[in-house]
Amino acid sequence: MTSRDGYQWTPETGLTQGVPSLGVISPPTNIEDTDKGGPWDVIVIGGGYCGLTATRDLTVAAGFKTLLLEARDRIGGRSWSSNIDGYPYEMGGTWVHWHQSHVWREITRYKMHNALSPSFNFSRGVNHFQLRTNPTTSTYMTHEAEDELLRSALHKFTNVDGANGRTVLPFPHDMFYVPEFRKYDEMSYAERIDQIRDELSLNERSSLEAFILLCSGGTLENSSFGEFLHWWAMSGYTYQGCMDCLISYKFTDGQSAFARKFWEEAVGTGRLGYVFGCPVRSVNEIGGNGVTVTARDGREFFAKRVVCTIPLNVLSTIQFSPALSTERISAMQAGHVNMCTKVHAEVDNKDMRSWTGIAYPFNKLCYAIGDGTTPAGNTHLVCFGTDANHIQPDEDVRETLKAVGQLAPGKFGVKRLVFHNWVKDEFAKGAWFFSRPGMVSECLQGLREKHWGVVFANSDWALGWRSFIDGAIEEGTRAARVVLEELGTKREVKARL
Amino acid sequence: MTSRDGYQWTPETGLTQGVPSLGVISPPTNIEDTDKGGPWDVIVIGGGYCGLTATRDLTVAAGFKTLLLEARDRIGGRSWSSNIDGYPYEMGGTWVHWHQSHVWREITRYKMHNALSPSFNFSRGVNHFQLRTNPTTSTYMTHEAEDELLRSALHKFTNVDGANGRTVLPFPHDMFYVPEFRKYDEMSYAERIDQIRDELSLNERSSLEAFILLCSGGTLENSSFGEFLHWWAMSGYTYQGCMDCLISYKFTDGQSAFARKFWEEAVGTGRLGYVFGCPVRSVNEIGGNGVTVTARDGREFFAKRVVCTIPLNVLSTIQFSPALSTERISAMQAGHVNMCTKVHAEVDNKDMRSWTGIAYPFNKLCYAIGDGTTPAGNTHLVCFGTDANHIQPDEDVRETLKAVGQLAPGKFGVKRLVFHNWVKDEFAKGAWFFSRPGMVSECLQGLREKHWGVVFANSDWALGWRSFIDGAIEEGTRAARVVLEELGTKREVKARL
Repeated sequence: MTSRDGYQWTPETGLTQGVPSLGVISPPTNIEDTDKGGPWDVIVIGGGYCGLTATRDLTVAAGFKTLLLEARDRIGGRSWSSNIDGYPYEMGGTWVHWHQSHVWREITRYKMHNALSPSFNFSRGVNHFQLRTNPTTSTYMTHEAEDELLRSALHKFTNVDGANGRTVLPFPHDMFYVPEFRKYDEMSYAERIDQIRDELSLNERSSLEAFILLCSGGTLENSSFGEFLHWWAMSGYTYQGCMDCLISYKFTDGQSAFARKFWEEAVGTGRLGYVFGCPVRSVNEIGGNGVTVTARDGREFFAKRVVCTIPLNVLSTIQFSPALSTERISAMQAGHVNMCTKVHAEVDNKDMRSWTGIAYPFNKLCYAIGDGTTPAGNTHLVCFGTDANHIQPDEDVRETLKAVGQLAPGKFGVKRLVFHNWVKDEFAKGAWFFSRPGMVSECLQGLREKHWGVVFANSDWALGWRSFIDGAIEEGTRAARVVLEELGTKREVKARL
Repeated sequence: MTSRDGYQWTPETGLTQGVPSLGVISPPTNIEDTDKGGPWDVIVIGGGYCGLTATRDLTVAAGFKTLLLEARDRIGGRSWSSNIDGYPYEMGGTWVHWHQSHVWREITRYKMHNALSPSFNFSRGVNHFQLRTNPTTSTYMTHEAEDELLRSALHKFTNVDGANGRTVLPFPHDMFYVPEFRKYDEMSYAERIDQIRDELSLNERSSLEAFILLCSGGTLENSSFGEFLHWWAMSGYTYQGCMDCLISYKFTDGQSAFARKFWEEAVGTGRLGYVFGCPVRSVNEIGGNGVTVTARDGREFFAKRVVCTIPLNVLSTIQFSPALSTERISAMQAGHVNMCTKVHAEVDNKDMRSWTGIAYPFNKLCYAIGDGTTPAGNTHLVCFGTDANHIQPDEDVRETLKAVGQLAPGKFGVKRLVFHNWVKDEFAKGAWFFSRPGMVSECLQGLREKHWGVVFANSDWALGWRSFIDGAIEEGTRAARVVLEELGTKREVKARL
């Protein structure tokens, strides 16, 4: 099946919109337009991992009659894969690790712990790191030297307490356990770099900036240093932990195969109704008795509770009644900063499999790695750009090809590009969440609060691996529990003993 | 409530058996002796974390009428806490971390992520590490020097591949992804130490041996090097990762409060029957139609499926019909090696809060840390011994007090001891699982297999954090899934759409 999302370019076809994905659901609904299949116990808005987890838990564990409304033609939200000629390209979200509790619990539960592959493979080929800080020169290093460069830079960046952040953020799920952590949350990347600028070599500074912008997708000025420390603490307070958790292990056949496990378990209960291609216009509480959800096409659906998994940057496109809290509105209006561009390139140099590169700040794609070998024997590079030097990859493919080429000039020809434009995607308006300075201190609690009959759940305001697949599952789990605790007590539990 | 398990000693009371615990269940059953409350869908044997997880998932998610049979008077199995004068002592199992996927998923699900405390507190007091390799001398070091000593020793120990074990065990949940890993699994601690003996300083060797025996609870000869590498890989291949995951963060009020969350959720369904104080004598398959479980007191219970969570070292006390597989029998007869002794001591020196110590090989307790400050203002030390120099802590309290005292001679008086003798406990016959050389290669798969209508589940044969609370939850989750997949398809799913 082909999704409307995503783009592909080859020299033969030029740019085409829409790529195949296991995540596309067809037919797009299992309920009749006329009767809408109600009454529903719960409506879940959004079929990303958060919505999928909530839907699964509500149908399977709680036995609720649940309706899933999804604006797109596929499951996965900001995290999905496209299989092209038998090879998986991760359009958004890729890596998982056994230190990510919620996603790993599901990976073992679905027996996919042996369906993972390493992204890095340094066993043959060029086997080096290419650092480019201007368009005309490259510095080549071993991967050991790359690790040491980034380790050194990141330890300087995070070492606010002589303990690499451990004492200021000892429990990352409880961010303000040490109240003074607020000052780091309020600090921008740029402000923190300014504090350590005399300690950083030129190469350390370039690599550091490229790496932390890879994490935030924003700019040095609009990305929160505290949010990076949160990723760092979740990863175990080390550079190696970051590499392991953030960019090392992926699903061998692409993650949409994983997302389908949740989907199939929920569908298998016979209690799931769903409508894809159904963007929501408004969500209205009906005097404490339930919630009406109105689609853009005018269809109305009613349920006792709603789980709304719409991302932060999209929430302001929906009308809510009663009005949302000022905390939530303030966060929605500010939005998160992640305007990441992720571009896959299939290149005709086998030896690039063991290549990694940074081209910063001059290039529109600043960080890339050899991520696999395609069935044609070419190397698959995954390349990232950020809002600090932004590109809309679909608007001028020659510019996109140039940015790919500038990562390692003269070393390859491009056979294929695959990407999605998350910034222009009206149902995402950006990539994974990354906080502005002060945003988490001010808004995290408010974003997690229930609003009448609506439970807001999204990886954007998870406590742990916020922004990750893991955080989406954390939030979906929480949302289903909230609904179960409220509605469960209203159901008669028949003691069968 | 007071459990029959555990011992307490004070100068005033002497040794007394039985300690209070939140895990004690009273009354011990909710079914009538005469009708046994059947028929049951599933019988779960054992109320440790594995059995509790299976019970919860079977009653809540699957809606099965489930009977829990537990030999003891309490939940928690080998992992429970005693609260004495308002202070928690962890009798077996203590530490958790956000890198342990299954337990952390439950911690966030039950909103206990802010109910944790650090074990180490180096903010005041002696603030040193005391290394004793003979009864007459002590070497004092800073904790930084302690970390460097153990880091260096453990890196030499694990560095079989120039990458600290990463290349031989890249996916710890898939232990034989690299088939040659088998040779490390077959290697004993002693054999590995022999390979690196010329690289280790005397202090490194003593500290290394004490640390790895702390992990295995066995001897250098009977503990598998590969099993240690598995812990190491799960921890992220670093000493700091081990310290973080193994011994840093615990439940502020003791873990039995956590275990009760599973219990209360299951009881709340109205579908759980339970009998505590009910050891099982035999488990008999009835011609493919179901399973009869016979208690020691002669009561018989029947269900469609049985989840048997009895630990490896106890399995041979139960009669199974049909006979178990030769792989399982072989593993049962060999048993795992962990004969750990864990002794809590309340000592009258406040300054010991920031103390850590190793006393090895001469002392019966080889590794200890300051783990808290009691309500009386004393320091709580947690002390460990292993089978390499074993003590039965209840048999001669003077010897136990001497072993505690020898950790830091002349530095404190003992106000209280709290412990359980896991080795003499007929329902444990040892502490957490630790593999003999070759045992995992030979038996892991066989231990995980279903036997007719009986699903065997225990942390002893988990794939991930085997031996940990996390592994127990992993296994309980798996067992409930297996039963659900089998029985679920036999139930009529009424499509309500």
